[in-house]
Amino acid sequence: MIIDLIAAVEFLENNDNYLILTHAHPDGDTLGCAFALKEALASSGKTAFVQCGDIIPAKYAYMGTADDYNVCFEKIIAVDVADAKLLGKAFEEKFGDRIDLCIDHHGSNRLYADRTLLDSSAAAACEVILDVIRALGVSATKTIANNIFTGLSTDSGCFRYSNVTPKTLRMAADMIEAGAEYTKINTIMFETKTRTYVALERLALESIKMFLDDRCAFITITQDMFRKSGSDETEVDAIAAIPRQIEGVQVGVTMREKPDGSFKVSMRSHEGIDVSEICAMLGGGGHPRAAGCTVSGDTDSARNSVVACIKEYFDKI
Amino acid sequence: MIIDLIAAVEFLENNDNYLILTHAHPDGDTLGCAFALKEALASSGKTAFVQCGDIIPAKYAYMGTADDYNVCFEKIIAVDVADAKLLGKAFEEKFGDRIDLCIDHHGSNRLYADRTLLDSSAAAACEVILDVIRALGVSATKTIANNIFTGLSTDSGCFRYSNVTPKTLRMAADMIEAGAEYTKINTIMFETKTRTYVALERLALESIKMFLDDRCAFITITQDMFRKSGSDETEVDAIAAIPRQIEGVQVGVTMREKPDGSFKVSMRSHEGIDVSEICAMLGGGGHPRAAGCTVSGDTDSARNSVVACIKEYFDKI
Repeated sequence: MIIDLIAAVEFLENNDNYLILTHAHPDGDTLGCAFALKEALASSGKTAFVQCGDIIPAKYAYMGTADDYNVCFEKIIAVDVADAKLLGKAFEEKFGDRIDLCIDHHGSNRLYADRTLLDSSAAAACEVILDVIRALGVSATKTIANNIFTGLSTDSGCFRYSNVTPKTLRMAADMIEAGAEYTKINTIMFETKTRTYVALERLALESIKMFLDDRCAFITITQDMFRKSGSDETEVDAIAAIPRQIEGVQVGVTMREKPDGSFKVSMRSHEGIDVSEICAMLGGGGHPRAAGCTVSGDTDSARNSVVACIKEYFDKI
Repeated sequence: MIIDLIAAVEFLENNDNYLILTHAHPDGDTLGCAFALKEALASSGKTAFVQCGDIIPAKYAYMGTADDYNVCFEKIIAVDVADAKLLGKAFEEKFGDRIDLCIDHHGSNRLYADRTLLDSSAAAACEVILDVIRALGVSATKTIANNIFTGLSTDSGCFRYSNVTPKTLRMAADMIEAGAEYTKINTIMFETKTRTYVALERLALESIKMFLDDRCAFITITQDMFRKSGSDETEVDAIAAIPRQIEGVQVGVTMREKPDGSFKVSMRSHEGIDVSEICAMLGGGGHPRAAGCTVSGDTDSARNSVVACIKEYFDKI
């Protein structure tokens, strides 16, 4: 059931003990939502715990710490989680059909929760969370400001992507005034590369292949490249932005080989190209400018099946 | 003479025909100031022309077009120009001692103009120009919005650098509402890499070497790499930012081989390390966080002489 802000706030006011779940492979937005909402609920005299199906990468340590697995709670909230599958396998099995409230900004949300507060015009789910926090009557503390700012900035490529709205920028301004350490946050998120990431980026640039009259660029990251570089899948996110940046490219694709040999595909586009439609053909989904799916097969056949869907989309538009 | 906003607006209201000058090697901020102010003065029933001592690079074409050299004007305004020298040699000689009003945000402004409106807390000179435009009672047109947004975004690394304030972000939000095509602008300024640049970047990443307990990272770009990638020295600027981004690196160095075999050295640092001091040891200079020099010798001996100076600096601090 889709609910509005007032109903979401009523739900939060009417219960006392919450478990907040982020999506697996956590990013700045889902963590920002979780830790900001936890703090806001605590300020409202509630208890809330945050759990994530995966280990939280060290660079997010300033945002907060996941809670123990043995906690008491009455209600479960999922933040920035468009599909119960995205909780990760173990959490999906444990909690997937028990989510009482989902707060999200993905237009593709599967409405798997009992109640869903959804604003698909928001650049980050943290925008929706800040609406909720304000409606709860809670002022932004420094912890809330750091967490909300991180979500706003990481989900918008530091305010660079087309999902940014005046509301995104004004909320960021408000969070800076509320104490967000934005220089530190932006340096960590956008100006710091590990040596293993740099090694992986070099291999990724070597792997670039162009398709469909150079309208489409592919980066392919294999398990062998993770081994050679010492990097791992937690560092792939930033690479997904690269193929789209190449002059003339309309769809940029990053394919990452998973341990089971299948490929996780991240697709990015410029205005006018809806990659969530292309990924839907492959059983995935997401946003118009940033979507994903999983394909199987060896590298060439996996890539060819993705190229075929992009061609089908290009032929149609 | 330093003047305030009211005095600047009085000056603009009391005259009719203006020549607006940008700095040489024009960037998004100086051009944004000039074309936005030109439009605002036109809206106020004045005439204004924009001139630049250099050719305006093609990527800024959407902002406006420089006017003919034979124009009639009574008063000269310099925007985002901290020193008359920065007008470029020809314009400095022609106009350097005749600037009636300078509108700027550089704390280092030499106060060479008759009147200077200066806000060194502004991330971009476009912030000061928008203050002026608003004080003139002019509403932001789409042209003004595109120009001001470009200045705000380019001078702040798309809202990433520490110079960003809540005012910067709120002005950007206002410009989006006034019609700024921010997705197009950010794509042009921040999301477009030529294929030759991508090829050069790959070779640059391959060349990374670490020194002094990994506190120092070197990228070396040779003439051979320019040939292999099809790139040239105009594309090197963005690469100079890379070595400093590597985790743990305090001094990032990019050495670019010149046609005569010597190396142009760009040095970048984080807070606490003054690379202008290090470059001064090698006959160069610059700012504390970004400086440069030229060294000769083959690649290894040139690099060793730079490393030796960095070591001397590290030993001293």
